[in-house]
Amino acid sequence: MKADVAVIGTGVMGSNLARNLARQSGHRVAVYDRDVERAQKLAADFPEAEFIVASDPADLAGKLAEPRVAILMVNAGRATDSAIGDLAEAFASGDIIVDGGNSHFRDTIDRGARLEGTGIEFAGVGISGGEVGALLGPSLMVGGSPAAWQRLRPLLEPIAAKAGDEACVDHIGTDGAGHFVKMVHNGIEYADMQLISEAFTLLRDGLGMTPPEIAEVFADWNTGELESYLVEITADVLAHVDEATGRPFVDIVADAAKAKGTGAWTAQVGLDLGVPVPTIAEAVFSRSLSSAVDLRAEGLSLAGPRPGAESPSLSPDDRATRIVEIGKALLLGKVMAYVQGFHEIVVGARENDWDIDLGALAGIWRAGCIIRARLLDRIVEAFDTPTPPENLLAAGFVRKIAETCQESLRSTVVRAIGHGIAVPGLASTLSYFDGLRTEAGSAALIQAQRDRFGSHTYARTDRPGVFHTRWSGDRSEVEV
Amino acid sequence: MKADVAVIGTGVMGSNLARNLARQSGHRVAVYDRDVERAQKLAADFPEAEFIVASDPADLAGKLAEPRVAILMVNAGRATDSAIGDLAEAFASGDIIVDGGNSHFRDTIDRGARLEGTGIEFAGVGISGGEVGALLGPSLMVGGSPAAWQRLRPLLEPIAAKAGDEACVDHIGTDGAGHFVKMVHNGIEYADMQLISEAFTLLRDGLGMTPPEIAEVFADWNTGELESYLVEITADVLAHVDEATGRPFVDIVADAAKAKGTGAWTAQVGLDLGVPVPTIAEAVFSRSLSSAVDLRAEGLSLAGPRPGAESPSLSPDDRATRIVEIGKALLLGKVMAYVQGFHEIVVGARENDWDIDLGALAGIWRAGCIIRARLLDRIVEAFDTPTPPENLLAAGFVRKIAETCQESLRSTVVRAIGHGIAVPGLASTLSYFDGLRTEAGSAALIQAQRDRFGSHTYARTDRPGVFHTRWSGDRSEVEV
Repeated sequence: MKADVAVIGTGVMGSNLARNLARQSGHRVAVYDRDVERAQKLAADFPEAEFIVASDPADLAGKLAEPRVAILMVNAGRATDSAIGDLAEAFASGDIIVDGGNSHFRDTIDRGARLEGTGIEFAGVGISGGEVGALLGPSLMVGGSPAAWQRLRPLLEPIAAKAGDEACVDHIGTDGAGHFVKMVHNGIEYADMQLISEAFTLLRDGLGMTPPEIAEVFADWNTGELESYLVEITADVLAHVDEATGRPFVDIVADAAKAKGTGAWTAQVGLDLGVPVPTIAEAVFSRSLSSAVDLRAEGLSLAGPRPGAESPSLSPDDRATRIVEIGKALLLGKVMAYVQGFHEIVVGARENDWDIDLGALAGIWRAGCIIRARLLDRIVEAFDTPTPPENLLAAGFVRKIAETCQESLRSTVVRAIGHGIAVPGLASTLSYFDGLRTEAGSAALIQAQRDRFGSHTYARTDRPGVFHTRWSGDRSEVEV
Repeated sequence: MKADVAVIGTGVMGSNLARNLARQSGHRVAVYDRDVERAQKLAADFPEAEFIVASDPADLAGKLAEPRVAILMVNAGRATDSAIGDLAEAFASGDIIVDGGNSHFRDTIDRGARLEGTGIEFAGVGISGGEVGALLGPSLMVGGSPAAWQRLRPLLEPIAAKAGDEACVDHIGTDGAGHFVKMVHNGIEYADMQLISEAFTLLRDGLGMTPPEIAEVFADWNTGELESYLVEITADVLAHVDEATGRPFVDIVADAAKAKGTGAWTAQVGLDLGVPVPTIAEAVFSRSLSSAVDLRAEGLSLAGPRPGAESPSLSPDDRATRIVEIGKALLLGKVMAYVQGFHEIVVGARENDWDIDLGALAGIWRAGCIIRARLLDRIVEAFDTPTPPENLLAAGFVRKIAETCQESLRSTVVRAIGHGIAVPGLASTLSYFDGLRTEAGSAALIQAQRDRFGSHTYARTDRPGVFHTRWSGDRSEVEV
């Protein structure tokens, strides 16, 4: 009896996805790993999965029913290229190779293009939800041809997370579309984590609260508009006590954040596309600043206020008000991170000829993935109309949250500045927000400067055309 | 009689550089352009330059003394690749091809590598100063082998700008080093322009001043610590009156800034290297936000304060105080943009095995280039000691400016927030500044979250090692 689908790579993510497939899809699963013993161990550890273990790509090809489907769960980069190369030799026209790793969408586009002519289909699937998601139900963002999607759908729907009774898997668009939106998902995740961490710092250093007290605030927030997986685990993490020292866990963790690159990609692609994603970029920069040991050692003694002054004198009422304001600031920050991410998706889709349904995308982020949140229900609703908005900023609920929260975002950032607490995520969100509201801003002067030093020309407000002033000559204006 | 050097590409930059070489270097200059008529016209228009016009690469090779030196002044990208290909066929071992365009430093590294084995040397030279600089004296940042530098030096020193009696040209490092620092130069330029434009907006919308009044403020600033080419031309541009309407010129220029990409590269490379360059990134994002027409149309009606409230009630003394504060905020912002740019250079140099002399680099930016400023004298001094600082933040004058200006930066940003004026550059500078000052910030929580949802591990504050908490199990800690 042949297998219906293969999983290549039996690390934690691959093993869990293979187990999920065996358990949920009703299909027979083959596994293959360059380290054949690792694949054999997986099969031995989970006999109920009835894995078929292949010893090499040719063996795998023989053990798979045709047309074959193989899902790569190997490291992005060279390992992925090499696995695709191996499979392409053993597979035939009509087969499908799926990259389920964290590949850059441009690599996915290139890899699909290189397989053209072989008849082998290539699909890039963004998988979110980490190890637990892979095992119990991830969010799956499928990029590839409509034909590939038809073939993959019955395999992936049973293993995806469920939002109500809807499976969190969808066809996002051709070639790199799945990996593109997964990248933006991660960018939003970076922003969300940064904003949450700033809220925590404001509660701790600005209001003098303890981690267990702050855990209660987050647990409370998780019953309202801010309800989300990240807020939930933040409450959990803040309540955790370090066994070795008896101190709050968060206080024994070193203040130096790491990153795996997808947040940086989101910012870099935003820069390429001319899409402002400042909250996402600041989140990435904040992590790198936290790890810039030399610079921070010099920075410690720089002049400025030290936090902690406000806490003793605050009345309980004032403290409660501050907490509400910080929560509102966090909510508006989160919404603006989504506005930025969706803007990047809209422009990316236009640039790459993808027809992305933003409502459907928000729908499959409602469960399984790291950024799952009540807010996504609101986004789904906003796009579920006969004439969906062109961008998320136009959604009614976004404007309402802006109205109820902008003042709190202002007062929270102002207070942070007074205390000398760094809030790059909240502050950049506010700059972005006010930039959006600006009728005539500072860009006119920049264009004027550019024309002055580099003859880069400018547009006028009062008539169409492209103009240049002869700055070194008689300062007359010419239309170019 | 053969030519000593050739300029390939006779657009404005190429023509001006060729004229500069002919006039200043005492060498004979050949010119070549794929559009041969354009090169012939250049020679005809400037007979005093005695240009030798070549009709094709082979003809050019014959007209150049050996070993040949050719400077490409063509568009970055394909045009550069194609010109190098043409020259490589006509040139021989020992010759030097110089790319004087705005190439990405990674392309420069790749191009040099591709020429290996031919014996042809490749040098990437960053040229700053725009058209006028190319003609009258640019700042020149040379990347390439020490041998190539020895050969290029007598050609480039006479045409470079002069800071006092020092020529603004230096060997920065091998291969892509020249284009790398030129990129960062442009990133600093983006930040500087953004900060200046925000200062302008605060004076106009926050204090209700007119462009001619603000021109006087900038002219005054240009006599002190802020003295710089960009402040000088800002005063000039703001004083300019539009002939057609009689209105201040800056008010008829459309509020939508464009960009040529080097600012975005600086931010993208910062993201790659893990170097926080938030002020530079915000400057790029601010330009793209200004051009995001759809989003701004939606954003106009978002809730929030409208500027202009303060102006009528302000006493002349208070106004004067505000202006001083804005100037101090601008100065600290500018210094922090340099700190970020120099940090990127330090890490980029480490990553690419370049030995970059930061003081010498600041030295050649003192004249000819767009960011020339009095501040650069201070930077040169700071590095001109037996034990120069590891990074610019450690320089005494930086710490002094931080001390005298940080309170003004705070009050300026707070006031902008109250008025609803977007100041992404100043606000991100302040976040960066306070991030540097933070002993224990928000990154610990981010690492805790990452371990909680993705088993990404963490370091502890109290002992070395890499740790993970078994969150789904008994919550014990394991060393990994």
